[in-house]
Amino acid sequence: MQVELDRRRPGQSRITTPRKESDTCKILSGVGQGSTLGTPIAVSVPNTDQRGNDYSEMALAYRPSHADATYDFKYGVRAVEGGGRSSARETIGRVAAGAVAKKLLKIQSATEVLAYVSRVHGVELPDDVVDHEKLTIEQIESNIVRCPDPVIAEEMIKAIDMVRLRGDSVGGVITCIARNVPRGLGSPVFDKLEAELAKGLMSLPATKGFEIGSGFSGSKMTGSEHNDEFYIDDSGNVRTRTNRSGGIQGGISNGETIVMRVAFKPTSTITTLQKTVTREGHETEFRARGRHDPCVVPRAVPMVEAMVALVLADQLLQHHAQCQLLRFDTNLPPANGEKGSENVTLEEAATRR
Amino acid sequence: MQVELDRRRPGQSRITTPRKESDTCKILSGVGQGSTLGTPIAVSVPNTDQRGNDYSEMALAYRPSHADATYDFKYGVRAVEGGGRSSARETIGRVAAGAVAKKLLKIQSATEVLAYVSRVHGVELPDDVVDHEKLTIEQIESNIVRCPDPVIAEEMIKAIDMVRLRGDSVGGVITCIARNVPRGLGSPVFDKLEAELAKGLMSLPATKGFEIGSGFSGSKMTGSEHNDEFYIDDSGNVRTRTNRSGGIQGGISNGETIVMRVAFKPTSTITTLQKTVTREGHETEFRARGRHDPCVVPRAVPMVEAMVALVLADQLLQHHAQCQLLRFDTNLPPANGEKGSENVTLEEAATRR
Amino acid sequence: MQVELDRRRPGQSRITTPRKESDTCKILSGVGQGSTLGTPIAVSVPNTDQRGNDYSEMALAYRPSHADATYDFKYGVRAVEGGGRSSARETIGRVAAGAVAKKLLKIQSATEVLAYVSRVHGVELPDDVVDHEKLTIEQIESNIVRCPDPVIAEEMIKAIDMVRLRGDSVGGVITCIARNVPRGLGSPVFDKLEAELAKGLMSLPATKGFEIGSGFSGSKMTGSEHNDEFYIDDSGNVRTRTNRSGGIQGGISNGETIVMRVAFKPTSTITTLQKTVTREGHETEFRARGRHDPCVVPRAVPMVEAMVALVLADQLLQHHAQCQLLRFDTNLPPANGEKGSENVTLEEAATRR
Amino acid sequence: MQVELDRRRPGQSRITTPRKESDTCKILSGVGQGSTLGTPIAVSVPNTDQRGNDYSEMALAYRPSHADATYDFKYGVRAVEGGGRSSARETIGRVAAGAVAKKLLKIQSATEVLAYVSRVHGVELPDDVVDHEKLTIEQIESNIVRCPDPVIAEEMIKAIDMVRLRGDSVGGVITCIARNVPRGLGSPVFDKLEAELAKGLMSLPATKGFEIGSGFSGSKMTGSEHNDEFYIDDSGNVRTRTNRSGGIQGGISNGETIVMRVAFKPTSTITTLQKTVTREGHETEFRARGRHDPCVVPRAVPMVEAMVALVLADQLLQHHAQCQLLRFDTNLPPANGEKGSENVTLEEAATRR
Repeated sequence: MQVELDRRRPGQSRITTPRKESDTCKILSGVGQGSTLGTPIAVSVPNTDQRGNDYSEMALAYRPSHADATYDFKYGVRAVEGGGRSSARETIGRVAAGAVAKKLLKIQSATEVLAYVSRVHGVELPDDVVDHEKLTIEQIESNIVRCPDPVIAEEMIKAIDMVRLRGDSVGGVITCIARNVPRGLGSPVFDKLEAELAKGLMSLPATKGFEIGSGFSGSKMTGSEHNDEFYIDDSGNVRTRTNRSGGIQGGISNGETIVMRVAFKPTSTITTLQKTVTREGHETEFRARGRHDPCVVPRAVPMVEAMVALVLADQLLQHHAQCQLLRFDTNLPPANGEKGSENVTLEEAATRR
Repeated sequence: MQVELDRRRPGQSRITTPRKESDTCKILSGVGQGSTLGTPIAVSVPNTDQRGNDYSEMALAYRPSHADATYDFKYGVRAVEGGGRSSARETIGRVAAGAVAKKLLKIQSATEVLAYVSRVHGVELPDDVVDHEKLTIEQIESNIVRCPDPVIAEEMIKAIDMVRLRGDSVGGVITCIARNVPRGLGSPVFDKLEAELAKGLMSLPATKGFEIGSGFSGSKMTGSEHNDEFYIDDSGNVRTRTNRSGGIQGGISNGETIVMRVAFKPTSTITTLQKTVTREGHETEFRARGRHDPCVVPRAVPMVEAMVALVLADQLLQHHAQCQLLRFDTNLPPANGEKGSENVTLEEAATRR
Repeated sequence: MQVELDRRRPGQSRITTPRKESDTCKILSGVGQGSTLGTPIAVSVPNTDQRGNDYSEMALAYRPSHADATYDFKYGVRAVEGGGRSSARETIGRVAAGAVAKKLLKIQSATEVLAYVSRVHGVELPDDVVDHEKLTIEQIESNIVRCPDPVIAEEMIKAIDMVRLRGDSVGGVITCIARNVPRGLGSPVFDKLEAELAKGLMSLPATKGFEIGSGFSGSKMTGSEHNDEFYIDDSGNVRTRTNRSGGIQGGISNGETIVMRVAFKPTSTITTLQKTVTREGHETEFRARGRHDPCVVPRAVPMVEAMVALVLADQLLQHHAQCQLLRFDTNLPPANGEKGSENVTLEEAATRR
Repeated sequence: MQVELDRRRPGQSRITTPRKESDTCKILSGVGQGSTLGTPIAVSVPNTDQRGNDYSEMALAYRPSHADATYDFKYGVRAVEGGGRSSARETIGRVAAGAVAKKLLKIQSATEVLAYVSRVHGVELPDDVVDHEKLTIEQIESNIVRCPDPVIAEEMIKAIDMVRLRGDSVGGVITCIARNVPRGLGSPVFDKLEAELAKGLMSLPATKGFEIGSGFSGSKMTGSEHNDEFYIDDSGNVRTRTNRSGGIQGGISNGETIVMRVAFKPTSTITTLQKTVTREGHETEFRARGRHDPCVVPRAVPMVEAMVALVLADQLLQHHAQCQLLRFDTNLPPANGEKGSENVTLEEAATRR
């Protein structure tokens, strides 16, 4: 959990906000003797480097493209310190929970979730030059922008440095893959796997777009170009030769690698002078003084992985409940760790009869 | 409701599937005396033109990029007639329910939801040449492809005709706007309004991508280019001069028009010969014979509107429950249509004390 | 399903309402080739013997202790035919769904759910004279009141006949047991198994009380009298010698038989002249003419079983999802009915490493 | 919030557990400037007087009628300190949240929730000797057992003292009323108001039964005795002369006082020697040494009130969302505290047209 939080932590490099937060997590409940206990896992990560006066001007005016105005519209309050409820600091909770989900996925089905920065402003790493089957976390973590191609990473860092020095910001794109996802996750209609992933990822701060598989470029193709043909691999499994579906067909995972892309807008908080209004309805000008990220995507990589892992773990549990029920075959109902219980799958049970 | 279903209906023009379904809806419950009754609204829309033998080959082989294989992976069954659970025929239910949601939104807050086709294959209608404040349903419905620009509509129809004649298909993009959305809909963290909209829209069949406001192009901008500055309009309301946020900031609607784009892949069912496998694990070839849409986007326009209307109606109810409670101010609790009850808002109640 | 519906059907004996409804069910979707298909199961059960004019006076006045007034208070409408949304006819859906849940429970864990009438007005069959381990459905169905003791059943029938002839009604109690419930169902805090069962049963029409195990009489005992001591049975399983807990401890099933009791009020619709008011606020008198049950409990027996089966089936799925995950142990994620997949429990997986 | 927690606190009198916990609450988030902020309210209440060694024997053996065995059956772990997840200490959270719900109900609709002890072992205060319309919190809090009748309270205290001195325990019953509940709360079918209340109350530790209105005694009545006749009161409101329904008809509140009763079993932890088994499957004997309540009902009074308040507050929000929508009547959607917005009810809006 701490490893993941360190990837999200402010102050980790020159291209992130200079705020210093150790983001040290303390587990308050739910874990003991090396495993979970069946109880909720509570984690505390206190703030240490919050400077209240950085936010003094925000109390007067709504920051453009921030949540100040809409939060006030909805709840009738202005909670300004650190961005209030809308601070991206809330993503700590997502990353911490994602660490647990990743572990569950790894143990259950050797599922791996990996994200990387595939665009910063005009600098792009096309998906098709990355080998998604061999991509490693080490490649991603080998540079501060979290792009697995070292040359393009360098260009991305330069692009961020350029806006950073003048107090501006840039947007970017994160590509996320999930390998070894069990077949059968997701539902055919409203709760399609891509719909759940889209919701999870579009709930991250600053996101503006989501793609699965071929994405928007798929809308420019013909069916004969786009369809993924099936074949039988050496192990006798049903596979697809191409993966424009992005690992999901009809809302259900097909066992191929799931590939997604998420667009992030440029950070709203910039030191450029901007026009805005006060809560009382007066027009005014505003220049931010807080210490903020010139580009959110390097720190958003673990957030994206966390949300995907959480969605997949949820879907794994649901799939088991609906489609992988064990059959209890003893006189007395079986209990964990107790003798006398024999578990057989429904299918095996059916063949016995 | 029937008007909306007619927009979705197969056989409505030469660029849709030639299957003839009247899709006549019959309301079984929930409505009477000109209004809803508080009970679930049940609607029946029977099939009339289903030809079972169109699907005979499908029973043998998994159709490429269709849900056949994944449905079988998950549930262990092949339900082939009409595509089974994964048939886009299920979207009838969405469109019918959306008609009710649209009416609620219109009465409650004069909210309007309009979608149109903004791309077919290589033919695009850029969002910025459409005046989203003045767009009308008549403009959209003025041609069979549902694109409000007549010249570009003609090109789109040609593009569809071209693939239609050779049994292939093309993808496309639908842009959807929601005007006059009340401020304050949505939640700050997990249930952001754009996350709910993304889930709703990515649950439609054949979708591959979702954008809100600036979308993926926003990731190529700087903060100083992207931010929406606030001003006070003539009525004294807080407004934004630009709308790159797409009507939502920090997960909550800000009263500006919500703008979304949804990418649809080309229809999977094509008459081209394709390689695939059978359920028993043998490689084979497959050529579809069913009557299918050469491009899904013209018929998907009412589906997109329906999902957006359903999400907004849900959020409207939630917002009312959390933030717009009335205060009951009588001795006896008030009842509908009964004398003696006086409703005041919490705010008014506070000033009285 | 039809067998269960026949147990609920009106007109099945002289002590139920004389309305004649065959209640023949037709399955519209979700089942084929002898099994469920992973799609929702839709069932249609049309009315045949509804006489609209039986309800003419109801349109004028609120029937005492019926839902007429409160439904109007909430929704502002009067939907009178057949009792509207509040008609006990809605329990058909519960009984139909319960038939599916019962089958699932039987296959999964040999769990059986049986209910019987244990009181009608002053005539009571004490729980402790019934051997809950040996009780059979045949004993329950051996008489029209559904009480497994033939002598007491006769007295109950007489008690119902007495009020039936004078147009009055009586209340009663149903006892329900669930045998062979797997250990571990339920949650420790808010979603305790007894809480879910209480909600399920108190959602049935006309219920006024719920007990689990010792119930209200347990509140008159001391801890030393009430506690269930543990022992190890011949198969080495942890069991309790007594079952005042009623099969649930700390919100979680312990493998002993679950025992519940549900109180039903006398049917509200009686032919006695009663004072009431009209919708317009005038006082008036009312005498029902509809054909109604003099006592609801004989027909409520299958409803009680259905709700208990539905709750247990839900909990079984949830328990599997949370605590009985299989581990996928192959290179490629496994699929239903496909070679190459080997399922091992987490525990087994742990011992291999 | 602290006032309510003090009513639940251990060590408050000689008839509760002698453990000393101040149960001082600290609000971590969600409240500021004298009101809620729209964010989750986090409350911390640390333990101070926990003696680990009180629980040493429990680690060896399952305590009879406690959750030790079932928790282990479900999750495969033994979390013993303080009872683990199943400790009634979790009810602090319910009481804290209930304090917020009570405030909301009071402001919104002047709804009051009051509970009192109506039975301890064989000592009973019949409901009909208490005037539920005039009952005050002062009467309830006037003695340590929380029974509004001073004479019977004295007998109850004696009954508790008797078992307390010999290390045994007794059960009891709590009656709870909710006055001035708005009409229309609850739903007609699955989510009946009494079903929600039953679930909320049966989720409290040690509960064995629930009654609404006439409860189990209602099952011994005839319809002509049980029905609540309607009349028009002096203010022109529809009322009932009797209240055997307990304030709810057809799952929906009717504006009369809601009356419930909850049965609590005797505390499981007693110092009597009892037979039990160890986790490893050996039979043994066990005598508790922890400091526990000889009777839970005095401290359970605020828990019962809290759960009822939480259910009613939830239902109030849902009712507003479904049936009390405001209509927005301006060009621009209205926002909190902003000029130009005019709220009218749907009904008013309808009459204007």
